[in-house]
Amino acid sequence: MIHICRRERFNAAHRVFVEGWSDEKNSEHFGACSNPNWHGHNYELFVTVKGEPDPLSGYVIDLKVLSKIIREKVINKVDHRNLNLEVDFMKGIQPSTENIAKAIFHEISPLIQKQKAVLHSIRLHETENNSVEYFGEFA
Amino acid sequence: MIHICRRERFNAAHRVFVEGWSDEKNSEHFGACSNPNWHGHNYELFVTVKGEPDPLSGYVIDLKVLSKIIREKVINKVDHRNLNLEVDFMKGIQPSTENIAKAIFHEISPLIQKQKAVLHSIRLHETENNSVEYFGEFA
Amino acid sequence: MIHICRRERFNAAHRVFVEGWSDEKNSEHFGACSNPNWHGHNYELFVTVKGEPDPLSGYVIDLKVLSKIIREKVINKVDHRNLNLEVDFMKGIQPSTENIAKAIFHEISPLIQKQKAVLHSIRLHETENNSVEYFGEFA
Amino acid sequence: MIHICRRERFNAAHRVFVEGWSDEKNSEHFGACSNPNWHGHNYELFVTVKGEPDPLSGYVIDLKVLSKIIREKVINKVDHRNLNLEVDFMKGIQPSTENIAKAIFHEISPLIQKQKAVLHSIRLHETENNSVEYFGEFA
Amino acid sequence: MIHICRRERFNAAHRVFVEGWSDEKNSEHFGACSNPNWHGHNYELFVTVKGEPDPLSGYVIDLKVLSKIIREKVINKVDHRNLNLEVDFMKGIQPSTENIAKAIFHEISPLIQKQKAVLHSIRLHETENNSVEYFGEFA
Amino acid sequence: MIHICRRERFNAAHRVFVEGWSDEKNSEHFGACSNPNWHGHNYELFVTVKGEPDPLSGYVIDLKVLSKIIREKVINKVDHRNLNLEVDFMKGIQPSTENIAKAIFHEISPLIQKQKAVLHSIRLHETENNSVEYFGEFA
Repeated sequence: MIHICRRERFNAAHRVFVEGWSDEKNSEHFGACSNPNWHGHNYELFVTVKGEPDPLSGYVIDLKVLSKIIREKVINKVDHRNLNLEVDFMKGIQPSTENIAKAIFHEISPLIQKQKAVLHSIRLHETENNSVEYFGEFA
Repeated sequence: MIHICRRERFNAAHRVFVEGWSDEKNSEHFGACSNPNWHGHNYELFVTVKGEPDPLSGYVIDLKVLSKIIREKVINKVDHRNLNLEVDFMKGIQPSTENIAKAIFHEISPLIQKQKAVLHSIRLHETENNSVEYFGEFA
Repeated sequence: MIHICRRERFNAAHRVFVEGWSDEKNSEHFGACSNPNWHGHNYELFVTVKGEPDPLSGYVIDLKVLSKIIREKVINKVDHRNLNLEVDFMKGIQPSTENIAKAIFHEISPLIQKQKAVLHSIRLHETENNSVEYFGEFA
Repeated sequence: MIHICRRERFNAAHRVFVEGWSDEKNSEHFGACSNPNWHGHNYELFVTVKGEPDPLSGYVIDLKVLSKIIREKVINKVDHRNLNLEVDFMKGIQPSTENIAKAIFHEISPLIQKQKAVLHSIRLHETENNSVEYFGEFA
Repeated sequence: MIHICRRERFNAAHRVFVEGWSDEKNSEHFGACSNPNWHGHNYELFVTVKGEPDPLSGYVIDLKVLSKIIREKVINKVDHRNLNLEVDFMKGIQPSTENIAKAIFHEISPLIQKQKAVLHSIRLHETENNSVEYFGEFA
Repeated sequence: MIHICRRERFNAAHRVFVEGWSDEKNSEHFGACSNPNWHGHNYELFVTVKGEPDPLSGYVIDLKVLSKIIREKVINKVDHRNLNLEVDFMKGIQPSTENIAKAIFHEISPLIQKQKAVLHSIRLHETENNSVEYFGEFA
């Protein structure tokens, strides 16, 4: 069993807040992250897939295929977008780094399985100091 | 003459667009960067100051003082903010990386001079691949 | 279950040596690391906490809270300090990177539990080439 | 149980291809990676060893010893070399990043055991976006 | 006057040697870098362009245009290639990092001028420790 | 004219203080940096040399030669040392980053000239946020 990891990047705006709360109450709970005028990040996304290397190529998964899956299902939907307003798989979900990572996991996991490999984890860096990693429901 | 450089960071939302143009025309000219719902970045800011080291401390400028100037005049105004809507020194200015760097230069240059040093340049990274550096009007 | 990781940094002096041994014997066993006049490092500390995201905020733990715990219990005690002489939780402990990581783990683990999360690991980088990770006694 | 990790680097040429296939067929399957005139990488190698810290030194393994093992058994054989043509432990093996990591694991695992520690994993970065990690047969 | 810098990357094989010298003589002069079986690198390329920001966009040069120039004139020719054998603008030139940077400068400088900007420098990193920067003939 | 840059690293202890002042007075002026029990850093040193590439090798200077000069004249004297107590070229000099960079410049400049190249600058990073660059007396 070998892990293979692909890094991709995207830039997006977001805001952490509870709908129905006043700006003041949101600010109290979430601080500057709830700014009603938005803020944004350069997100770094690390997708780790596991499996056995193919006898011929020595690849667990062709990185060009993995990169294509990530771009089509994730990057094209989130890059230069507003994570609260414009991303189908984030509709109705609080865009904390934790929740974005979970949503991305479930978005691409079925497509990895079609490649006869297993999605091990989604690691997402919001800043150089803050990151999360999600391993799926049964991890 | 020695250069001393301090790195600070901020996260912000922005949009590159021309007011009065339709979203379509802005999109044609500026692509995804003009998304009306905003996007954002983790900006890295490098402030370079030059001068002679103080005979006692060996410092061109005390980095605690330099950091305080940058935080008060820049970071506190731009971090977790919308660069188009909320930053006094960016009012009416297209928030390209070039223009943000220029505005920051003029914002802090007078305060560096009060410290008996000279602001050499503002380098600003928008992503790991894109950066600008501004050296002032007479460079 | 999601992992969330916070990076903090500190600069400290230390020396790896056995009290009671001569400088020569220490030098034989530990090389330059036992220099009686000390040396030092820019340590990078990665604190990983695990738990379920809060339904409202989507946070496993508020990173401002996590950062405050790390600063109060660790950074304020070790930054710009001598790890052999000045740090309460390192008293009588050989300041190898391994032992510093273990001591930090036990220092902050109870405070993470009070936040209804679990400390997963302490990763500590001494240089860009050398790091350790500690997962607790029962890992 | 503590993990300790040492980074080493090497630069090498390689080509991913199947002997007996035409250049065209290799190109179809492996793209630019099968260029018959070779291409190359700056590989980053992370060797993670686990064990209990020694009571006296606080070390799981002396990093000078670990670094010497990696240099003698790996770096000296692969640095500035052609991975398809010149490396004894890669003879007859497709030099995918996965297979290089596996081969390095088996090359140094016995020597780590002689140091009373256990090789936990080999992580190998081919580019800043692509990496693999291998944990041994029984992981 | 503002500098704007774009980073691109490529992986290539090369060999530093003098044609007509024996392998032994080349090895004496150039060490492992002259390995007749090639070695390779992940090159990092930083292209710095200078000019005045456009009043409307605030751009010195559109980074999508700059990136396209670099990809068409450089990356497509060198990525996954052998720098001694396969690159038109390196024919007959010793592929030292210095000479590659010079050749890239002259390759793209005319195209930058057509964009009403000036190519300031080409910085090329061969490894994380070694880099060169070329500023043109009249710098 | 081409610039070539070599990065080297060292770990050292130091303290910024004025001899003859009380610990209290030093602490008031220099803060935690004057801790009488020392603190330390992982310094990153960038040595930039300029000249014309040799027609045969394409090298401005052989990086093995440059690295050897830096190691013999600098790294061997400062690595795992106390910059206030143990380094000949820092005797009687306040070990601010500025002053260390200046001293290193004058230490290696004559040896670069013997290689028919010119030392352009010494850049020294004390932390990931703080760095200085010195260009010599006549820059």
